[in-house]
Amino acid sequence: MIDINKEIERLDWNREPKGLYAPIAYALSSGGKRLRPTLALTAAECIINGGLLQGDVPEAVLPAALALEIFHNFTLLHDDVMDHAEIRRGRPTVHAQWDTNTAILSGDQMLIEAYKQLSRVPNDKIAGTLRMFNEMATGVCEGQQLDVDFEHANNVSLDDYMRMIEKKTSVLIAYAMRIGGYIAGANESQQEALYQYGLHIGLAFQIQDDILDVYGDPAQFGKKNGGDICSNKKTFLLITALESADAESKAELLGWLMTRDRDEEKIAAVTALYNRLGVRTAGEDMMEHHTAEALIQLDRLPQNEATGRLRLLAERLATRKS
Amino acid sequence: MIDINKEIERLDWNREPKGLYAPIAYALSSGGKRLRPTLALTAAECIINGGLLQGDVPEAVLPAALALEIFHNFTLLHDDVMDHAEIRRGRPTVHAQWDTNTAILSGDQMLIEAYKQLSRVPNDKIAGTLRMFNEMATGVCEGQQLDVDFEHANNVSLDDYMRMIEKKTSVLIAYAMRIGGYIAGANESQQEALYQYGLHIGLAFQIQDDILDVYGDPAQFGKKNGGDICSNKKTFLLITALESADAESKAELLGWLMTRDRDEEKIAAVTALYNRLGVRTAGEDMMEHHTAEALIQLDRLPQNEATGRLRLLAERLATRKS
Repeated sequence: MIDINKEIERLDWNREPKGLYAPIAYALSSGGKRLRPTLALTAAECIINGGLLQGDVPEAVLPAALALEIFHNFTLLHDDVMDHAEIRRGRPTVHAQWDTNTAILSGDQMLIEAYKQLSRVPNDKIAGTLRMFNEMATGVCEGQQLDVDFEHANNVSLDDYMRMIEKKTSVLIAYAMRIGGYIAGANESQQEALYQYGLHIGLAFQIQDDILDVYGDPAQFGKKNGGDICSNKKTFLLITALESADAESKAELLGWLMTRDRDEEKIAAVTALYNRLGVRTAGEDMMEHHTAEALIQLDRLPQNEATGRLRLLAERLATRKS
Repeated sequence: MIDINKEIERLDWNREPKGLYAPIAYALSSGGKRLRPTLALTAAECIINGGLLQGDVPEAVLPAALALEIFHNFTLLHDDVMDHAEIRRGRPTVHAQWDTNTAILSGDQMLIEAYKQLSRVPNDKIAGTLRMFNEMATGVCEGQQLDVDFEHANNVSLDDYMRMIEKKTSVLIAYAMRIGGYIAGANESQQEALYQYGLHIGLAFQIQDDILDVYGDPAQFGKKNGGDICSNKKTFLLITALESADAESKAELLGWLMTRDRDEEKIAAVTALYNRLGVRTAGEDMMEHHTAEALIQLDRLPQNEATGRLRLLAERLATRKS
């Protein structure tokens, strides 16, 4: 079994000019779940071990898995610039550690490095992988732009929100599954099942993120509660609350949205409103729905140890605390 | 013959979200020389018309030509953010017209759009084209980083400078030639000749740019004289002057480098120093050398009408005024 963390460590960034490559090494060494490459490798295992055999995932899938992880970290790097975020995974972000120009240019190079990995995919799969990867990357940028647009919009519906997180978060996970399967030889219907599985766990993952921001255990989640509430971020919880509230609760909620400097009080009041309106339960129902949809997709795939891990992962994501 | 401006106009950016795509349409509609796609198409013509026939360049080369132009404009977009440049080709830059975050994200999407064009290259040429394109893109980012590093360095040699502009400017032109030829079926030796031709005209082009900044006719060049002098930019002229000056001239030049607020006086004095040291002539000699090197490469290629245009282009670049 390929150890993805080891493979990421083995990437050689000891290249000139240092000012370009040192920030890339830094960004990729900060850990994280390595969810996307792990999914790509697991999807490939699921397809290859179609005959219930256990076997190694071929090296052929590794470059694409690395491309997905490098791309993901590229998006974090540029997003952190755009959000003026100072901390990522407990360390200064690249633009905080170096400067904004460095973060822009090294981020650009990371995107190119992702495509360099794609050029190492077996020749007969390069064209297909490149097309899927481009679709994915476009979705992520479009999702990011929609997220920015939502900040200034007053009428974001739950449908709008779900479409946005589908692009910003889910499409990358969905294509991680599909690309892993494709390179391993999945047929069209298997590719579609892998894609849909990824799409649904991505949606569940993002909604869980919204819930944890308010209700998570700060010690486990790694962030203080209520960050999204303070910044008026349009999350599943806020949009559902605005859509389902009676006139009085809605007025109260809108009042808090205009309040800028009483953070502790605002977090407590909005959380209380969320509790009264039952939006946490609505979020958990939505997560359960998408987890169930993801699990159904697995029935369309070969059944083996890798499929079992995908089943477990979907179930665990829905109950994760961090 | 493919009309590259028409093909760029035909790209459809009327897509959602508008906030992501409108800046891309804006950046690509601002004109410019379209040098890189024109070179890719001409290289292809030169190879295809090997038998002295005249014929159309196949559509097959067009996606790569568009990818090169989109990539080039992506680099301008992000470079303008990093340089805080407000005007590009007589119009506000993207970050001035919108904002920095828009320029970052739409720039990222432009880079992805370049790779989307590459995925339209004929299947049997995709892997090779992708690898060359990645090499090119890496060179450009490394060159940009070296340029940044040079701002703070005191000991940049002429060799360092030539290596930097080779990456920042020439590699893109060299790979435009090589990729155009490769897709048209050039053999290894022809590809190398096309590449070397591009590398040398790129070097001549950049040195001419340095000369025009000081000596160009502002009405034709489109910029006021002496911008590089005011900003202490390490150009061919400045580096050659520092390397060739006697102790007295060098002291005078270093004195002006430390002068920040007497722009007119500084431009006049440094230009006078350049004249005395003969650095303009040194630049013109270097340009002529690289133009000659480029022309030699053309002897290794099929001789036809397209080759004739490449010959003319090399000669004209060396005497361009704008």
